[in-house]
Amino acid sequence: MNSPIGIFDSGLGGLTVLRELAQRFPSESFVYLGDIARLPYGNKSPETIRRYGDQILEWLKVQKVKALIIACNSASSVYLGEESFRGLPLLNVIGPGAKAALKTGQKKIVILGTAATIRSRAYSETLKKLDSQIETWEIPCPLFVPLVEEGIVGDEITRLTIERYLAPVKKENIQTVILGCTHYPLLKSDLQGYLGPVQLIESGAVLGDQLDQLFFQGTLDKSSSNDRVIRLCITDLTDHFERLAHQLMGSQAIDSLERVVL
Amino acid sequence: MNSPIGIFDSGLGGLTVLRELAQRFPSESFVYLGDIARLPYGNKSPETIRRYGDQILEWLKVQKVKALIIACNSASSVYLGEESFRGLPLLNVIGPGAKAALKTGQKKIVILGTAATIRSRAYSETLKKLDSQIETWEIPCPLFVPLVEEGIVGDEITRLTIERYLAPVKKENIQTVILGCTHYPLLKSDLQGYLGPVQLIESGAVLGDQLDQLFFQGTLDKSSSNDRVIRLCITDLTDHFERLAHQLMGSQAIDSLERVVL
Repeated sequence: MNSPIGIFDSGLGGLTVLRELAQRFPSESFVYLGDIARLPYGNKSPETIRRYGDQILEWLKVQKVKALIIACNSASSVYLGEESFRGLPLLNVIGPGAKAALKTGQKKIVILGTAATIRSRAYSETLKKLDSQIETWEIPCPLFVPLVEEGIVGDEITRLTIERYLAPVKKENIQTVILGCTHYPLLKSDLQGYLGPVQLIESGAVLGDQLDQLFFQGTLDKSSSNDRVIRLCITDLTDHFERLAHQLMGSQAIDSLERVVL
Repeated sequence: MNSPIGIFDSGLGGLTVLRELAQRFPSESFVYLGDIARLPYGNKSPETIRRYGDQILEWLKVQKVKALIIACNSASSVYLGEESFRGLPLLNVIGPGAKAALKTGQKKIVILGTAATIRSRAYSETLKKLDSQIETWEIPCPLFVPLVEEGIVGDEITRLTIERYLAPVKKENIQTVILGCTHYPLLKSDLQGYLGPVQLIESGAVLGDQLDQLFFQGTLDKSSSNDRVIRLCITDLTDHFERLAHQLMGSQAIDSLERVVL
């Protein structure tokens, strides 16, 4: 039996990660748990994030997953450096995002994230461990998630908010920007409109490499399957979730949508 | 013994209600529970709001309160029409807010609120039950809470957001606006800057009348006490809570701050 891969996110933003992985590993099954009832995680304390995170990782374990992926940057920053959870391989988005940023060859890197992610300094510390020459600018952007959730994108309000957060680094002429939150890829063109042609790093997009390594090490079952299943599980059914899920998943199909009470 | 009055809110916004009541009833004790770990409630489903709400009201009951007040408009809309909870008197902010709006004598009333409050139509239905001649405009303002939480007040971003939400009703020349969320009083001057000298109704401010009625009916213990206690209990300790609590409580002192795990 080909066990599924578990993905945990605070809401629907991690669907950008699921979409990438579903396309890259077409015979793998996935169980996605979005904790919509308790989002956002970006302004919670590390203790509360870990309490909710452990509960969700345990729930995914009960679904018989063979690996756990934390797609949420705020949660990833709390579990940084932990490679397993109760016997299962545990992956997060910080390491892959940092490595992808280093590959650009730039020494100056901007990290955009939620209050929790930035406060943790997870990206900065990971980057500096890999290359002590790296200079970082870490910028909390707490309004980005509500703007994306409300569909206020490509808008004067968004432009002003981006300017407010990014004006101090714009003059540094930085070429590499880590989008340290799964919602931020939806602001790509707004960010590029303001910053010009910088490289925007999406952690989710490079997570596949790390999953590949796990495959090659034989930790994950590579047997192909025509009946792979993608389950989208959410802890609340809210107004916008269908629109947002569709926006984030693109053409990638979902096999089942379930509400889970945690 | 003078039992405390319990106040439940999704976060700290309800402190505006606590401040009003603490000043009006100087010998009463209060226990305030702000569910910061799971805020905001404004974009949750009614089922999830009730699940969390029941848990919190039960927790307040265990604290031996003599009455329960739901300060959160989103939660109030779910418990609308329910006057008791497991044997304790239960008050919410919708009724008092609607009555205060009617007292202005205006027949056209705007209601600003979260997605959950507006979707519930709680204010409109309450107003029309009291006066069938009333015309209402209900406007969800989901960005107002994050703006207030981030301290972005008296700002161009705030002005643009207000314009976005309120431009359609501005031309109706409406004189009475219900601030249907405990965070919105902090946007008073921004709202008045855009709308001109309209009457802004804060539900919390008029809740005291309803509590007074309960007193007069003898349901609440009126014995005076020099050692009244005000407990502020929150479900998470986050970055901004101290700044925001101070802003909302003004000069009103808090006797104890407790973190509660729910």
